Amino acid sequence: MIPFPPPPSLSSPRVTVWHEYRHEHTNPRVAAHYPHGMHVTLAEGLRAHGLSEVRTATLDEPEHGLGGDVLAQTDVLLWWGHKAHAEVSDEVARRVVERVWDGMGLIALHSAHFSKPFTRLMGTGCDLKWREASDKERLWVVAPAHPIAQGVGEYLELEREEMYGEHFDIPAPDELVFVSWFSGGEVFRSGCTFTRGSGKVFYFRPGHETYPTYHHPGVQRVIANAVRWAAPTASAPRAFGNRPPLEPLPGETTPGPQ
Amino acid sequence: MIPFPPPPSLSSPRVTVWHEYRHEHTNPRVAAHYPHGMHVTLAEGLRAHGLSEVRTATLDEPEHGLGGDVLAQTDVLLWWGHKAHAEVSDEVARRVVERVWDGMGLIALHSAHFSKPFTRLMGTGCDLKWREASDKERLWVVAPAHPIAQGVGEYLELEREEMYGEHFDIPAPDELVFVSWFSGGEVFRSGCTFTRGSGKVFYFRPGHETYPTYHHPGVQRVIANAVRWAAPTASAPRAFGNRPPLEPLPGETTPGPQ
Amino acid sequence: MIPFPPPPSLSSPRVTVWHEYRHEHTNPRVAAHYPHGMHVTLAEGLRAHGLSEVRTATLDEPEHGLGGDVLAQTDVLLWWGHKAHAEVSDEVARRVVERVWDGMGLIALHSAHFSKPFTRLMGTGCDLKWREASDKERLWVVAPAHPIAQGVGEYLELEREEMYGEHFDIPAPDELVFVSWFSGGEVFRSGCTFTRGSGKVFYFRPGHETYPTYHHPGVQRVIANAVRWAAPTASAPRAFGNRPPLEPLPGETTPGPQ
Amino acid sequence: MIPFPPPPSLSSPRVTVWHEYRHEHTNPRVAAHYPHGMHVTLAEGLRAHGLSEVRTATLDEPEHGLGGDVLAQTDVLLWWGHKAHAEVSDEVARRVVERVWDGMGLIALHSAHFSKPFTRLMGTGCDLKWREASDKERLWVVAPAHPIAQGVGEYLELEREEMYGEHFDIPAPDELVFVSWFSGGEVFRSGCTFTRGSGKVFYFRPGHETYPTYHHPGVQRVIANAVRWAAPTASAPRAFGNRPPLEPLPGETTPGPQ
Repeated sequence: MIPFPPPPSLSSPRVTVWHEYRHEHTNPRVAAHYPHGMHVTLAEGLRAHGLSEVRTATLDEPEHGLGGDVLAQTDVLLWWGHKAHAEVSDEVARRVVERVWDGMGLIALHSAHFSKPFTRLMGTGCDLKWREASDKERLWVVAPAHPIAQGVGEYLELEREEMYGEHFDIPAPDELVFVSWFSGGEVFRSGCTFTRGSGKVFYFRPGHETYPTYHHPGVQRVIANAVRWAAPTASAPRAFGNRPPLEPLPGETTPGPQ
Repeated sequence: MIPFPPPPSLSSPRVTVWHEYRHEHTNPRVAAHYPHGMHVTLAEGLRAHGLSEVRTATLDEPEHGLGGDVLAQTDVLLWWGHKAHAEVSDEVARRVVERVWDGMGLIALHSAHFSKPFTRLMGTGCDLKWREASDKERLWVVAPAHPIAQGVGEYLELEREEMYGEHFDIPAPDELVFVSWFSGGEVFRSGCTFTRGSGKVFYFRPGHETYPTYHHPGVQRVIANAVRWAAPTASAPRAFGNRPPLEPLPGETTPGPQ
Repeated sequence: MIPFPPPPSLSSPRVTVWHEYRHEHTNPRVAAHYPHGMHVTLAEGLRAHGLSEVRTATLDEPEHGLGGDVLAQTDVLLWWGHKAHAEVSDEVARRVVERVWDGMGLIALHSAHFSKPFTRLMGTGCDLKWREASDKERLWVVAPAHPIAQGVGEYLELEREEMYGEHFDIPAPDELVFVSWFSGGEVFRSGCTFTRGSGKVFYFRPGHETYPTYHHPGVQRVIANAVRWAAPTASAPRAFGNRPPLEPLPGETTPGPQ
Repeated sequence: MIPFPPPPSLSSPRVTVWHEYRHEHTNPRVAAHYPHGMHVTLAEGLRAHGLSEVRTATLDEPEHGLGGDVLAQTDVLLWWGHKAHAEVSDEVARRVVERVWDGMGLIALHSAHFSKPFTRLMGTGCDLKWREASDKERLWVVAPAHPIAQGVGEYLELEREEMYGEHFDIPAPDELVFVSWFSGGEVFRSGCTFTRGSGKVFYFRPGHETYPTYHHPGVQRVIANAVRWAAPTASAPRAFGNRPPLEPLPGETTPGPQ
């Protein structure tokens, strides 16, 4: 057995907030809520919850801001995209997916349900119903002991949001943390956890660009909780490939060559 | 609400057995066990269990034998591949995946853990440990009430098989039906169910080409059980896209336009 | 390996509808909806869906109608109770639980969330929020390929029902089939499956006694689907206890005495 | 929404190690391994992993050592029992179960599979196969990213242990962390997590009294990891009971009385 190292200090995991950052340039309503971009608001919310190592990256940077060592030095990646999913290069999407398998946490926000990294990790179509009509949304906690729900109370209420409705075409989540009620009559599995390889994935529904959702203190709290939950642990090794036997095989008296 | 049609009679789902069918042409040991190809043995096993609508398809046929209406007219697809995964066209793999989302069952056999359809449906690397050393394998039933385990007894025993060992890099299965014991000291989650879209997926470990595994009556029984389990049901509709509200939105007195 | 018997014909599982049958005697609103008792309406709904072997049992019969061979000859038990949970004898509750472990399906309806058999099978408190205020309820299908959702459409709508709200204190269900939206602003996991031993359990929320819910064709359809889903399969044997080794132990050359 | 308190510091949860403590008094082999009792060895192992607040309690103390404020002041309870399960009072078992629902973690060790608290939390019979024959056991990590598997390597190996074999009659665990291989040919789901109410439960198989298992550094590491994993979080409130509507009900224009 290998030695027992203590778990690394992950009190402040290294976070990268990835944002498509297009709506802010063309829609004044979006720019009014997020004058420096949604990624900056998200990063500030994380810092306000004590996460000190937060950087940002956007679609129009070289390699979408995820080149060099950025992914290798990211413990948890937030992803917001909407109208430019197709412009994310397959190569960068592949790198994100493989880094998740290797242990990086991924927080997929709102319309990231259709992003390349999320859909590839899910293996499903990830479609849903939607309506832009200023519904009220109430996110009920259905797993009150889950660390992502800490400090949230019985529910979060958002006065105006885009509606997302079931059926949400995802694999059955490992854990269901939030279910949304919408004023127009729909429900949605709004907070879902998954594990892929050594990486933890959290999908969190709220965050349409024309509403100030990411300024909401409860939403910020959930995202900060999710970052801490998704930070990698000192995993057991993931070892694969050809292996000699550990015990004598039938007809042998000793194990094969080690 | 839509009318309530009775469920379709799926006592004999339409099955297509897909096989890479390469080893038989180059390795006499494989040809000795499967003179007409592994797909023919698998198909005969299904027919012996009362499944009357069984056809086969192989890699080297045009469109890998899955062109035209074949997939549309397949309720459950079996898949065995090993050394030629990369030769399966991305387009055919995509069609298989989308047909699963639409309700087709998929039985991924043995080395199909690395096939394009299975890995894309899983969203993980699907790697594992392995050894070709004539281990004994004993597959224990851990979910005795599962329909796939009907008639199997407490375990299946295979005198000689390739070893597959944990860690098996898949998402946590919806249901774990079998766990294998290997004489060399390893264990493996050998029978795993998943749902992707409306389609049911079953991964079943045994079936290395140099052993007569698919002639084993217990293995044949499990695969026939799995076909019946994976056959599509008369699903509720999977409806997506933009939707008007079903209730008055805040500030309105009637729902929006229907 | 044991022989492979064909699965028994369970096209018409033997159903017992168990009902507390108290409200009908004291509340005219309940009697108006269910003049012969809710159990009779439930039984008629099952027969209308082709389930021919349906009997009923009620609290005030000797042994609550579940003595003698009744449980042994029941494949699926429906349970509705509300104000007299405490009057169900511990002994009968124990027999029901053990018969579930042995393979009998259990459909727990509405206020049966607090019944002795259901809470003992769950291992949790099973509490929830509630309101008798004639809410509208809309049950959304979140697992459209599940057999219990066959023929239901995208949702079921009940014009008037009691509200049940999260948090619902159950273990995470094996499968989540329905989520309810309520007009008063709440959500609820309304259709949940569990396995306990060889028995399948389905909790289904609707059915407050002062509304005609069990006359609703969609509700009847779901319950009939659930009966077919919960009917026992020809399980692999559940064998326990002291066992000799199947392989030579360390230092031995042959397995121990068989 | 309630204020957002930071999560409490649970770097050193308060642990109580509960032990039946009977075998040591009658079986010299057990006393040789555990001269001060298994509970003392377990407590020392936790302290060696930095858990400073560890106390013990045993069956033959008044109220089994769990009276007064002990449970209220316990964040995580370890439980080892074997031949005296029936001597644990129903009242104390009930208190343990309710404290788990309220957030206390429970680590059920080895033969505690048949203990009153564990079986009541599971809702199943919890039976299994067994053999006292000095098998070798190898516990494979099947969830390498799980915090309970931190620092463990690919597997733990125990030269001599009692065999426990499938079928293990538990509900499907939330997460499967370890699967055991036994030299006699069996497998077992050896490390299983569950949630009941706000409490986390971990079942861990090894620890037969006639072997020095709880001196094994890997076993000690897993148990210390499990204590940290099972420590309660600052849960969202679990609120139940009668509730006024949050939205106007049909036919109303304002919500009911708050």
